[in-house]
Amino acid sequence: MSAGLSDNTAFVAWRVRQQEHVEQALSNWVLADAPAGLGLVMRYAVLDGGKRLRPLLALAACEAVQGDPAVAMRAACAVELIHAYSLVHDDMPCMDNDVLRRGKPTVHVKYGEAQALLAGDALQALAFELLVPDDGSVPAALSARLCRQLAVAAGASGMAGGQAVDLASVGVALDQKALEGMHRLKTGALLQASVMMGASTAALDAAVLRQLSTYGACIGLAFQVVDDILDVTTDSATLGKTAGKDAAADKPTFVSLMGLESAQAYADEVLDQAHQALSASALPHTDTLHALADWVGRRAS
Amino acid sequence: MSAGLSDNTAFVAWRVRQQEHVEQALSNWVLADAPAGLGLVMRYAVLDGGKRLRPLLALAACEAVQGDPAVAMRAACAVELIHAYSLVHDDMPCMDNDVLRRGKPTVHVKYGEAQALLAGDALQALAFELLVPDDGSVPAALSARLCRQLAVAAGASGMAGGQAVDLASVGVALDQKALEGMHRLKTGALLQASVMMGASTAALDAAVLRQLSTYGACIGLAFQVVDDILDVTTDSATLGKTAGKDAAADKPTFVSLMGLESAQAYADEVLDQAHQALSASALPHTDTLHALADWVGRRAS
Repeated sequence: MSAGLSDNTAFVAWRVRQQEHVEQALSNWVLADAPAGLGLVMRYAVLDGGKRLRPLLALAACEAVQGDPAVAMRAACAVELIHAYSLVHDDMPCMDNDVLRRGKPTVHVKYGEAQALLAGDALQALAFELLVPDDGSVPAALSARLCRQLAVAAGASGMAGGQAVDLASVGVALDQKALEGMHRLKTGALLQASVMMGASTAALDAAVLRQLSTYGACIGLAFQVVDDILDVTTDSATLGKTAGKDAAADKPTFVSLMGLESAQAYADEVLDQAHQALSASALPHTDTLHALADWVGRRAS
Repeated sequence: MSAGLSDNTAFVAWRVRQQEHVEQALSNWVLADAPAGLGLVMRYAVLDGGKRLRPLLALAACEAVQGDPAVAMRAACAVELIHAYSLVHDDMPCMDNDVLRRGKPTVHVKYGEAQALLAGDALQALAFELLVPDDGSVPAALSARLCRQLAVAAGASGMAGGQAVDLASVGVALDQKALEGMHRLKTGALLQASVMMGASTAALDAAVLRQLSTYGACIGLAFQVVDDILDVTTDSATLGKTAGKDAAADKPTFVSLMGLESAQAYADEVLDQAHQALSASALPHTDTLHALADWVGRRAS
């Protein structure tokens, strides 16, 4: 196990290189020339921002299973487009009403609500389009599988469902189980799908898929626990978004439920489970997935 | 050619039967048990409403090419879910701010804007999910093709792009070419995709596909011209939505551009082209597609 890799030069170099590749691929695929300025709004929502955690998970999972990296890049960008559209819609006045995202004005502040709504809608469609190129570069069976994974993770039994639970949970005293259930849908489903879509680029047996699925679920949970910790320990400038907003909105968080110290211990425990699942998979090339788990646990924003 | 079929009993019986099948299929696929009431919002947005023109086009195209009707029903419901989500988002205050749809309060009036936004998002994801069942009932190559057709028709170079042009065209003196370009994206792309997705359920040569594509494009254009006519000639109760709103919003329409009589003549001309394309396809089972063209031209709402 190489759980310390996130500190080392090899991982940082991999991460920076892949972030650049993802940025370039997104820039190639999210075209400026969509009608009436819509392409510019979509590019504003997607480019030049974010940690690209979901794409990195997809690419690292592909590396772990020695899959097709070109297909993995499509999967990586597809999950990022879903993530980006969800942020655009989530920031709108009728949802979180947020004005700052990745250190920039949110899309509806910059372009108006109607354009934000449409750009989000178009980004979701584009995510699926990326998975079904007409150039034969992705085998049809793999395209169909990736579309299914993405649709389930993004929809009512995944991300959108989790957001509905989140909406309904303001001011409600959720216990830890209910809170985890909400986040498993709201952020966990797409993070886990990122891993599984990357892994779909190679044929794997069911036992390996189960371990990767556990890894993905643990990453999703740890990500959210750390998010809640950062929300109270870090300022808006560092986060690139409004800090302290969960507490201000009277939303339950792992920190409000467990306290800061226990939340950190819980994040560490869940990440340990992620490392263990990877090790149990017996896949030979999991260094980067291990390092990403550490990165999720130790990130500063 | 059987252009008079829309008046006859056989077509009416077919239409009513298929509308019931579509309603039942949508009810089976849009589940009430999505989290936090989201499923109920999605069902409210989708069920018990609309002419189901897009599903009918998909099913009739499948019939024309003697394709797989079970796959066509998935395609039919997928295009209807995209249509339904677009109505939900389009009715929101930041877009058309409409309160009446299919004779009922719009989704955001009934459930609030946040739930409307999320339900629309989840319906789009579900549309793609329908096309990639995990039960092997749709061949992977066909799933991938249908996903591609739907994604392109729904996205920035289709419906969402057309809505962006529409937003930008309020108070602008579009000429007929620009108006047609806008509608080709906004409503035409999905109507045409309905035909082409239904036709994808069988293997066809390129010449036949071209004729069906022309048919679909003509249906899309005629539908919009008639829509503009109905907007000024019919009351809200009959339409089930707010009448006269384009004029009130200072939006260009075929009627404002050509006058009522010329618009009706133009609709007839475009529908003639639809019939001609069908006849030129030499497909043996196009009676229902012919009848649907007449239905589009003569509908009262």
